[in-house]
Amino acid sequence: MPAQLRRLLPLILLAAAWPALAAGSDVIGENLLWLALIIIAARLFAPLVQRIGFPAVLGELLLGVLLGNLSLLGIHFFDSIAADPIIRFMAELGVIILLLQIGLETRLGDLVSVGVRASLVGCVGIIVPFSLGAFVVGPMLLPGLDFNAYLFLGATLSATSVGITGRVFRDLGKLKMPEAQIVLGAAVIDDVLGLVILAVVSSLVQAGSVSVGQVSWIIAEAVLFLGGSIAIGRAIAPRLLAWASRLDSSHSMLFSLVLVAGLFMAWLAHAIGLAPIIGAFAAGLLFEPVFLRHFETPKLVQEVEPLLPAAVNPETQQKIRDVLAKHTSHQHEHMIEPIGYFFVPVFFVLTGMQVDLTALADPKVVAVALGVTLAAVVGKLVAGFAAGRGKNPWLVGWGMVPRGEVGLIFAMVGKQLGVMNESMFSVIVIMVILTTLITPPVLTVLLRRAGGRSSAVNPENR
Amino acid sequence: MPAQLRRLLPLILLAAAWPALAAGSDVIGENLLWLALIIIAARLFAPLVQRIGFPAVLGELLLGVLLGNLSLLGIHFFDSIAADPIIRFMAELGVIILLLQIGLETRLGDLVSVGVRASLVGCVGIIVPFSLGAFVVGPMLLPGLDFNAYLFLGATLSATSVGITGRVFRDLGKLKMPEAQIVLGAAVIDDVLGLVILAVVSSLVQAGSVSVGQVSWIIAEAVLFLGGSIAIGRAIAPRLLAWASRLDSSHSMLFSLVLVAGLFMAWLAHAIGLAPIIGAFAAGLLFEPVFLRHFETPKLVQEVEPLLPAAVNPETQQKIRDVLAKHTSHQHEHMIEPIGYFFVPVFFVLTGMQVDLTALADPKVVAVALGVTLAAVVGKLVAGFAAGRGKNPWLVGWGMVPRGEVGLIFAMVGKQLGVMNESMFSVIVIMVILTTLITPPVLTVLLRRAGGRSSAVNPENR
Repeated sequence: MPAQLRRLLPLILLAAAWPALAAGSDVIGENLLWLALIIIAARLFAPLVQRIGFPAVLGELLLGVLLGNLSLLGIHFFDSIAADPIIRFMAELGVIILLLQIGLETRLGDLVSVGVRASLVGCVGIIVPFSLGAFVVGPMLLPGLDFNAYLFLGATLSATSVGITGRVFRDLGKLKMPEAQIVLGAAVIDDVLGLVILAVVSSLVQAGSVSVGQVSWIIAEAVLFLGGSIAIGRAIAPRLLAWASRLDSSHSMLFSLVLVAGLFMAWLAHAIGLAPIIGAFAAGLLFEPVFLRHFETPKLVQEVEPLLPAAVNPETQQKIRDVLAKHTSHQHEHMIEPIGYFFVPVFFVLTGMQVDLTALADPKVVAVALGVTLAAVVGKLVAGFAAGRGKNPWLVGWGMVPRGEVGLIFAMVGKQLGVMNESMFSVIVIMVILTTLITPPVLTVLLRRAGGRSSAVNPENR
Repeated sequence: MPAQLRRLLPLILLAAAWPALAAGSDVIGENLLWLALIIIAARLFAPLVQRIGFPAVLGELLLGVLLGNLSLLGIHFFDSIAADPIIRFMAELGVIILLLQIGLETRLGDLVSVGVRASLVGCVGIIVPFSLGAFVVGPMLLPGLDFNAYLFLGATLSATSVGITGRVFRDLGKLKMPEAQIVLGAAVIDDVLGLVILAVVSSLVQAGSVSVGQVSWIIAEAVLFLGGSIAIGRAIAPRLLAWASRLDSSHSMLFSLVLVAGLFMAWLAHAIGLAPIIGAFAAGLLFEPVFLRHFETPKLVQEVEPLLPAAVNPETQQKIRDVLAKHTSHQHEHMIEPIGYFFVPVFFVLTGMQVDLTALADPKVVAVALGVTLAAVVGKLVAGFAAGRGKNPWLVGWGMVPRGEVGLIFAMVGKQLGVMNESMFSVIVIMVILTTLITPPVLTVLLRRAGGRSSAVNPENR
């Protein structure tokens, strides 16, 4: 083939393929295209957002807002994505996987043993924003709505995103600071309390009327499910894992068990009337590193280990072992990450697509959003002062400000239950975006003032 | 809480949750349960099958056959799975992911540089079984059917499963034998030729009538798509990957790019009328290790590397580097494996569920299946004698016998196109199961006779 023809070949082929590119129509084909577009767009958008100092989740949300509002410019190519049942299931799977991941990264021991301070900060950080939302900002700024709507607003304001919070400190290289430890402990507690609040509020809304008996039953159900499934799960898990490892002790078996536990408990939670994500989170708590000792370490570790004793000096040998051990024990926390890369962006892009920018045309909605955001920030800053002497209260308070995916999940549930109207949903998404946007630069400034060891942003942020 | 009550708690909770377990009804909930059940059942079934010397895929198929025929025993719990559009999409995604993996594990250079012998074995191993199926066994054993059906039978018999073939030799620890190398080379060639044959036969069936012009166009389209997409892809890939790595050089970015390439090219192939799996396979061929040098090595490698020069003797240092390098360069081949663990079993279980055991009640179907299986074995054994002097022809021939997932994909396509009736589909699935079942024990015996270095089954088989 002459060189010129060979150079033209790609163009000729592209031209030949073009009608197909424009035409392809049936469902399986289109969904493959949607998934590819959502994943790659989110992937390329995220680093742009990260480069100017913001977490990747913001890029996915903004991308969703963009795609969801292209119809304002007359482009209707993306309108059918949000309504497609297969894509919606993928998004649901995405948020289930995310909460399973958060559960895996949470030690049940930490939930029990984090000091009085973290619990205090966590509780104040739930009560103050919830009260501000449900009893002050809600009725003041959004008068005439159902009381359930104010409850949901309060629940949304009480949320703290372990994911975002942890990543902000990690991105700034400050995970080991005492303030960061308190924030993480409090965020873990808030995550569980927030999930209970979500279950209580959701069930209140679905049950219609409210009685002390019902509230008690809902709380009991949520506590029984979380406590019970964790108690049963952790009683069964070691034996079940030991038995499964005798069948097949490969890493992929463990992977499947983690995934199946998440899917099964998400279904179970859903079946008894709780949010599937609560089940997924509880499933993540079942897998303690100590339960997993029967499973093979990854092959790289297996192959490097025998090389060490022969020729390495004891100090370096130990260092290499430490690195290997660290990666092995944390392995199960990261093992479902690839599934997350696949599905989680689908959830956040679809969530962004729910934001109706025409709501911003209403100055009242914008004013309300700013007021709600103010309450969201103030509520968490108050909690910072529960951190005790010797701690920087502003650092702790601001560390808890980002609502991230948890706030959005609450908003989505509220919308699905019909409690929130379009403009209230938009108000909350704007609040989530703003709290997630404001925090990284504020924390950077606060850490510099506090004489932090390094003010450089850690590039290792994903 | 007293100890006895604490011991009873799990039972009480399980009893309380039971109505929900039996009731849970809506679509998202049920699909979560189906996915969990399919994945865990396949996972627990596979090691049982592997323990008696068979590949995991066989366990997934047999599980599917079991679940799909429970209705014969009056259990209709699983009947709705196979018809559910979301589960079907997951299965479709599973086979796309599998072919993307096979593409990633195939070097384009190998397709070009494997010797004359492998090509000869591959071609004979295509032509003889295809001719046997389409012109001898088909018309003889299944008289009165459409010629298209015979063509599909021939195509199915010509398939060789790179996955199964590679895994059989790997499970037996014989991947480095010259016979194994020839089989792998021939299987890679057969895989591509088989995909072209599938495209040609599928398009022939869909186009209705057959003319030389049409056949030429279909062949040209398949060759143009495969050749063209690979030519364009490999011309663009290095620059695109370098550009993407400047945005974000993390491992997860590379993962997303691989996945998106697979989804996008599967859609493109589908849109121009080819099977999505052909696009996914072609996408896998685009990612050569050399294109990926801009992307970060995994963190473990990054952390171990600086520890080496200080204190390790040069020889061990090199050994550890080799282990790290091997794992780094092969990393991208395995990076989408977790997605595979999730979706691939869904495909094979669903495929097994398509097998109608009532077809076995017909002695004629059983007789036909045995005849077809004989042709399937004989056709590939003939190819073994093209391996040349000094090679064990029986070892090469038997190495190519398993049809595995490729044969099943062909059968599924044939069924979807309406070319194959129920009993012909069952015949082919029985043939695939038998060829996959017979091969491992036969190869083990042949290797022992040939004085193989070790006859123990390698447990590192997944």
